[in-house]
Order: sequence, then structure tokens, then C-alpha cells
Amino acid sequence: MKLITAIIKPHQLDEVKEALEAFGVAGMTISEASGYGRQRGHSEVYRGAEYTVDFVPKVRLEVLVDDIDAPDVLEVILKAAQTGRIGDGKIWSVPVDEVVRVRTGERGVSAL
Amino acid sequence: MKLITAIIKPHQLDEVKEALEAFGVAGMTISEASGYGRQRGHSEVYRGAEYTVDFVPKVRLEVLVDDIDAPDVLEVILKAAQTGRIGDGKIWSVPVDEVVRVRTGERGVSAL
Amino acid sequence: MKLITAIIKPHQLDEVKEALEAFGVAGMTISEASGYGRQRGHSEVYRGAEYTVDFVPKVRLEVLVDDIDAPDVLEVILKAAQTGRIGDGKIWSVPVDEVVRVRTGERGVSAL
Ligand SMILES: Nc1ncnc2c1ncn2[C@@H]1O[C@H](COP(=O)(O)OP(=O)(O)OP(=O)(O)O)[C@@H](O)[C@H]1O
Ligand SMILES: Nc1ncnc2c1ncn2[C@@H]1O[C@H](COP(=O)(O)OP(=O)(O)OP(=O)(O)O)[C@@H](O)[C@H]1O
Ligand SMILES: Nc1ncnc2c1ncn2[C@@H]1O[C@H](COP(=O)(O)OP(=O)(O)OP(=O)(O)O)[C@@H](O)[C@H]1O
Ligand SMILES: [Mg+2]
Ligand SMILES: [Mg+2]
Ligand SMILES: [Mg+2]
Repeated sequence: MKLITAIIKPHQLDEVKEALEAFGVAGMTISEASGYGRQRGHSEVYRGAEYTVDFVPKVRLEVLVDDIDAPDVLEVILKAAQTGRIGDGKIWSVPVDEVVRVRTGERGVSAL
Repeated sequence: MKLITAIIKPHQLDEVKEALEAFGVAGMTISEASGYGRQRGHSEVYRGAEYTVDFVPKVRLEVLVDDIDAPDVLEVILKAAQTGRIGDGKIWSVPVDEVVRVRTGERGVSAL
Repeated sequence: MKLITAIIKPHQLDEVKEALEAFGVAGMTISEASGYGRQRGHSEVYRGAEYTVDFVPKVRLEVLVDDIDAPDVLEVILKAAQTGRIGDGKIWSVPVDEVVRVRTGERGVSAL
């Protein structure tokens, strides 16, 4: 299994969420984050305001998936998160040894 | 070493924390998250209110452990987080290459 | 590639950020977290107040780096985060299978 993490623009969350649901992803976790990429000094627009400060608000999205689905899920997030403007985000994938579904105690792919 | 991450019900945090301490875990990190699993459309109850919105508040718990302790720590969290009701959470384990304790510069298992 | 995560004192963020920039890191993500290490019962000082509660506010910093840079980046964070007092933090490194830069679709090291 893989844990796919995406740091995306807050504006794009609905689109990414809907694209993941359309693909058939069973669940996801989000949290607040902030950050910056290569344009440290540049300003980014967020909620109509221009940010010259370094850390721009982002949404962190995490999705646990079966290995076989990982490339497709990454592609689904990529397409839905892309606006073509700087600060669109990063997506990464990390290997996962074990997953457990707490209510049932199921493990592995059937726990997803 | 392993990084065990659990997305649990906020109500269960105290129980999970006490169970981990009783087991002998040396430290932990928590943060706010929200998410949903397989019952996308269903409502969940949080702080007396019924949530029909997608993202239900959760606590994200992270524990760095030695490989040999990982299965037990996962089991400890599983038992303490379980209420038997939907939305009880997910736990996963990821391989960790290196850990450093900042104050002392210790590395590996002695840094935990 | 590696994902280096550091749980540091909020006070040290500026110093860590500047040290990472001086090293040449292209981007980073931060978020709020809280936690504790080995001095569960001990109090820590945060913003002039003594915390006897378990969970002390921390900053979680994440940096995606090329494998070859990982040991140096870890060292840079270690030096900049160190105050010599308890609660200085933990740093860990996790293997990353894939990174994508959303705007351009670039993958791997060129996506960092
Ligand atoms: N090397 C990195 N490590 C960790 N997080 C990063 C890294 N680079 C970027 N991020 C996170 O991703 C978010 C979006 O980055 P961003 O899209 O600006 O990357 P970029 O490489 O500068 O691409 P672009 O040129 O399209 O802006 C940042 O706000 C930050 O939270
Ligand atoms: N595939 C997933 N990827 C990432 N996070 C997930 C995933 N599935 C669930 N989560 C996280 O775990 C939390 C709890 O999920 P939940 O317990 O509802 O899973 P479930 O499979 O629907 O189990 P149950 O049937 O017991 O409700 C969610 O709110 C979400 O934050
Ligand atoms: N085993 C662990 N798993 C996950 N997070 C941890 C662990 N230990 C510590 N942390 C996180 O790192 C933060 C800082 O830990 P801390 O520096 O107090 O570790 P320590 O081993 O007690 O070192 P020191 O003796 O210098 O205080 C904690 O607030 C917590 O968020
Ligand atoms: Mg950028
Ligand atoms: Mg559910
Ligand atoms: Mg400590």
C-alpha cells in the first residue's frame, strides 16, 4: 500500500475531492498546512489578498491506496489540483507497511 | 524504526494516550485533522452534533517506535481507539530510515 | 528521495527556515502540532508560561529532498533547532517513491 500526500491550493480542494470520489477512493484525511516552493520571494494570491510572506496557506490531503491504484490516484489529484499558476502544489507517495481499520480490526487492502 | 500514524476520534485521545503510556511509549505527536471513510454520505456524531458534511474532525496521532515494538504499539492503539461505531479510524505504519533527538544529537533507536 | 520531518520548538522556526534556505532547499511545508517526549511529567516553558500539561505546542516541518542531500539537510535542521534545553525536538527521514510538481507535471528530483 501507499500513502499519497498532496499539498494543494485550498481553492482546489473541492475539485480534488470530487475527482477522487469519482475515481472510487474510499476515504481521505485533510489538515491545514502552509508552505512555499521555488518562488520564495514572489507573492501569491490567496483569498483575494497578495501574500509576500513566505508561508502561504495550503491544504494537506492524504489518501491511503492499494499499490495498484497509486499511479492513477496520483494522476487524478494532479489533474484536479492543476490551475497552471505558481504554487499549485506537490504530491508525493510513500510506502506503507500496514493499514488497520479500527472498528473491525481488518488489515491490509481490505482495511482501506 | 517505524512511524505509526493513527486517525482517531477526538473523544478517544485520552484513552489512547494512557494506553500508550502504560505500554511504555516515550513520546508522541498530535495534530488536528478531518476526514471521512466509507460512509461518505452517512452522518457521524461529534460533540453531540450530527455531521452530514463530508469532513468530520479527527485527531492525528504519530508515534515513532522501534521495529520490534511496532506490532504491539499498533495493537495498543487499535484497542484503545475502538468504540465499535463507524468512524473509529485508521492506523498505518511507514518505514523510517533515521531518527535524531535534537537536544543530544543521538540517532536511531536511542533517539526515540 | 526522502521526506524529512522535524518537530521543533516554535521559537526555532525562523532559524531553521533561514538555515535551510542558506543550504539551498527549494521549499518546505509547516503545520501546527503538539506533543511530548521523555519528560512527560516535567513542565516545559512556552511563551513565558510553564506547561505542566502533556502536550506542548510544536511546529511540524517537512522537507522533500534528493537522497544525496538528505544527511546534510538533517544536519542543517539539527543545528538550527538545537537550544540545548529539553523539548528541542525530533527529526526523522522516510523514503519517498515519487514526487510530482503539480503545475508542470514534472516527476522525481526535477519536481523538488
Ligand atoms: N521541497 C519541498 N518540501 C516540502 N514541501 C514542499 C516543497 N516544495 C513545495 N512544498 C509544498 O508545496 C506547496 C506548493 O509548492 P509549489 O507549488 O509552489 O512548488 P514549486 O516547485 O514552487 O512549483 P511552482 O513553480 O508551480 O510554484 C508549498 O507551499 C509547500 O507547502
Ligand atoms: N483511504 C483513506 N486514506 C486516508 N485517510 C483515510 C482513509 N480512510 C479513512 N481515513 C481517515 O480515517 C478516518 C476514519 O475513517 P473511518 O473509521 O470512517 O474508516 P472506514 O473504513 O469508513 O471505517 P468504518 O466503517 O468503521 O467507519 C477518516 O475520517 C479519515 O480521516
Ligand atoms: N516517540 C515519539 N514519537 C513521535 N513524536 C515524538 C516522539 N518523541 C518526541 N516526539 C515529538 O517531538 C517533540 C519533542 O520531543 P523532545 O525533544 O521532548 O524529545 P525527548 O526525547 O524528550 O528529548 P529531550 O530529552 O531533549 O526533551 C515532542 O513534543 C513530540 O511532538
Ligand atoms: Mg512555487
Ligand atoms: Mg467510516
Ligand atoms: Mg523531552
